[in-house]
Amino acid sequence: MSELAHGTLAGLAEIADTGRDARRGGYSRHLWQGPDLELRAWFTERAERLGLGVETDRNGNLWAWWGEPGPDAVVTGSHLDSVPGGGAYDGPLGVVSALEAVARLRASGFTPSRPLAVLVFAEEEGSRFGIACLGSRLLTGGIDAGRARALVDADGVTLAEAAHRAGLDPAHLGVDREALARIGLFIELHVEQGRGLIDLGRPVAVASSILAHGRWRLTVTGQGNHAGATLMGDRRDPLLAAARAVVAVQDEALNHPGARATVGRLEVVPGGTNVIASSVHAWLDARAPTDAATRDLVTAIEAAVGEAVTVNGCSVAVTEESWTGTVTFDAVLVGRFRAVLGGGALVPALPTGAGHDAGVLAASVPSAMLFVRNPTGVSHSPEEFAEVDDCVAGIDALASLLRSLL
Amino acid sequence: MSELAHGTLAGLAEIADTGRDARRGGYSRHLWQGPDLELRAWFTERAERLGLGVETDRNGNLWAWWGEPGPDAVVTGSHLDSVPGGGAYDGPLGVVSALEAVARLRASGFTPSRPLAVLVFAEEEGSRFGIACLGSRLLTGGIDAGRARALVDADGVTLAEAAHRAGLDPAHLGVDREALARIGLFIELHVEQGRGLIDLGRPVAVASSILAHGRWRLTVTGQGNHAGATLMGDRRDPLLAAARAVVAVQDEALNHPGARATVGRLEVVPGGTNVIASSVHAWLDARAPTDAATRDLVTAIEAAVGEAVTVNGCSVAVTEESWTGTVTFDAVLVGRFRAVLGGGALVPALPTGAGHDAGVLAASVPSAMLFVRNPTGVSHSPEEFAEVDDCVAGIDALASLLRSLL
Repeated sequence: MSELAHGTLAGLAEIADTGRDARRGGYSRHLWQGPDLELRAWFTERAERLGLGVETDRNGNLWAWWGEPGPDAVVTGSHLDSVPGGGAYDGPLGVVSALEAVARLRASGFTPSRPLAVLVFAEEEGSRFGIACLGSRLLTGGIDAGRARALVDADGVTLAEAAHRAGLDPAHLGVDREALARIGLFIELHVEQGRGLIDLGRPVAVASSILAHGRWRLTVTGQGNHAGATLMGDRRDPLLAAARAVVAVQDEALNHPGARATVGRLEVVPGGTNVIASSVHAWLDARAPTDAATRDLVTAIEAAVGEAVTVNGCSVAVTEESWTGTVTFDAVLVGRFRAVLGGGALVPALPTGAGHDAGVLAASVPSAMLFVRNPTGVSHSPEEFAEVDDCVAGIDALASLLRSLL
Repeated sequence: MSELAHGTLAGLAEIADTGRDARRGGYSRHLWQGPDLELRAWFTERAERLGLGVETDRNGNLWAWWGEPGPDAVVTGSHLDSVPGGGAYDGPLGVVSALEAVARLRASGFTPSRPLAVLVFAEEEGSRFGIACLGSRLLTGGIDAGRARALVDADGVTLAEAAHRAGLDPAHLGVDREALARIGLFIELHVEQGRGLIDLGRPVAVASSILAHGRWRLTVTGQGNHAGATLMGDRRDPLLAAARAVVAVQDEALNHPGARATVGRLEVVPGGTNVIASSVHAWLDARAPTDAATRDLVTAIEAAVGEAVTVNGCSVAVTEESWTGTVTFDAVLVGRFRAVLGGGALVPALPTGAGHDAGVLAASVPSAMLFVRNPTGVSHSPEEFAEVDDCVAGIDALASLLRSLL
């Protein structure tokens, strides 16, 4: 990332060593753990250097204010946390671009007529507590605070305990009407996570919609036993059953046009080489073009998985961990933004299968997104990338929008 | 285990709280980690109380000597480590029974005509460093010392580092001809890990043979990507490929009479719910009645797995981690032991699919095993069990054999 070490993307270079994951490659930056705390300190220092006033809300989201906080503020930002072994752009590009756009406006002597804030959402990826967009869901009431407090991480630490250790009052987690009332409009710039802009040959797009999506936990139960002494016919092997279930998940996704269904996390209990497992936990990520299509997909998967595991004498329990309905960004706002950016021919409107805090906020306040081209088409991986010129085009676009709104 | 709190099995009661695994159930006792260190201290104190002299060999195996060490000693014992979430009997029953048999001989005023040792092998399950029977393999030269030193645990700690921390000189790991020369004969008592004694209605058996077995690591490589933004047709998902491979493993085992093939450990990289994996590590445990049949099985599995993963555009690399040929215990020794124990009609000779240190030692010194009935037929699981009466029958048999040999 040496080409970023100076100029408009210096922010990305400054955090390029924070949270590197030597085992997985890429970055692992999870809520309130070492790298995330470093990134929060970095953001605070960066924003204060710009003359912004930084505060943490009751849910751990960071706000950097230009002028007095709200009401009717223009708010822009993204997140700094990552998936395990994620890329450098997913989240940080939106935060760095927001800071840079504000820096340009200030440097140009521009005086805003309404408040502006750069917002960093907590736990967007859900990598520590399992619920994606946790910070925006808590802020908007999109998740019950009691349920959220009881979420546990891989070490058995609850969100309530983790929040307490991070200096928050767990009793105050949850919907924050005061903070929400300050937001007049939210814009999130994000690296694209598919191939839409590659195919169109353009550097920047406005988001049109986000697929409905959710997470379900599949717990497959069999009987643990000795891998050498147990005859093949005497087994109830839940990893074999889970393997059939994973294949069934793909088969059902292929049966549903436009659907995506993935098992990317799977844990074997007890997990010994010479031990037939006793149970397997697998997590399903399912998405489809409409709420009904996604529900249909998951119903079909539940049936197929239930049937698949019986072949090996096992059972499966399916629990919904999160759900987000289809988000269709406001067509008038999308049109207006495309016009500000030079017209619809230059700036396409793209749907996406990836969830975002802007999608969660869209239910409460007018929200929009900008996507920056990703030449690999790959995301949630160290291969995720964005050319400097395209990042600069994204900052130009964001700064233009902010100027038009302020 | 309250019925064990006094009497001949008090040893099992004394260690009943050591290394309990709250998440998996049962016990997790891994080489030189907290519970294993506690068990070593417990064994040392127990043996010294019996008047035995305890020493640790250069490979971390514990020897408790009655009289001067070797040559031509009668050696009996087993191991104290466990699989993750294992049962209370696999290993400790043989150690506790050995100590109890020696206690009885001493209490009866018996004077042995040759040396005797109770031996506790290190890392029998291979749960920390991946190689089963590591202590006996190192002792006998069944694994190259240089390769062993470089083995790493899940935290990246090498065996050399772990040995150093445990007070051993890593340069001295490996074949120990002096220790080996002391062993005249080795007997291991072990809970049965199958249903042989249930079916025969007998409490104790002598082992006749151990299936050939080994461990292979399968690394499936695909392309990490975003679970929502990546179309089903654009994926090279290694977890899906690994799932097909796991099913192929079972299919091939069913095609090979008497064979057992298991995947019980599987790790997804990076392992995020909203992330298509980039690679998957799976471990194959394969066993069959002869060396050739086991090699045939693994060759067939390699071919089937290689084909299975191509369906999802992935590749697989297969690495052998350990191999143990078929062990046929000496027929004369088996016959003699059955005669000492009251005749062949009372004490059956049973083959087993489970590997044991006695099987590794058999290549170097005369070795034998006693099995104690397991009424659940389940092992490597908290459900593993042995009735007190059957355990007592095992100790009676072991004490009779020792008396006949000393």
